[in-house]
Amino acid sequence: MRVDIQVAFGRAVKLRRTELDLSQEELADASTLARSFVSGVERGESNASTASVWKLAKALNCMPSDLWLAAERIYQAAR
Amino acid sequence: MRVDIQVAFGRAVKLRRTELDLSQEELADASTLARSFVSGVERGESNASTASVWKLAKALNCMPSDLWLAAERIYQAAR
Repeated sequence: MRVDIQVAFGRAVKLRRTELDLSQEELADASTLARSFVSGVERGESNASTASVWKLAKALNCMPSDLWLAAERIYQAAR
Repeated sequence: MRVDIQVAFGRAVKLRRTELDLSQEELADASTLARSFVSGVERGESNASTASVWKLAKALNCMPSDLWLAAERIYQAAR
């Protein structure tokens, strides 16, 4: 099943969040982003900007490049 | 001089574009993004979304994680 990059990025965020045993609510609080936006990013429906990716990565205690590396792996694996 | 992450990301895009000896016009064409948007991203004024970052990386023959690694280095170096 083809996965588009936004969906792959969302899965990478969810993967990291669950690795840290955080709820979406906790990630939203920690990243100062709206809960609905975090859930939209994870579903691949919200298009996270550079600034939001930075906030998400900080809240997930990693770097944006880590999230993108995971997203690229998910994207490649689904092709 | 503090550099915010959006400015650092823009510099990473410009660095890679000049490495490839591409003009902004050529990068805009190759990425199917507007020239004004590409120039705004490079100046750190336009906030590139996941989808745009993917298009820029493809046009720059690299992965989004490469752009982000460069941005993170620029950001850290400027702190």
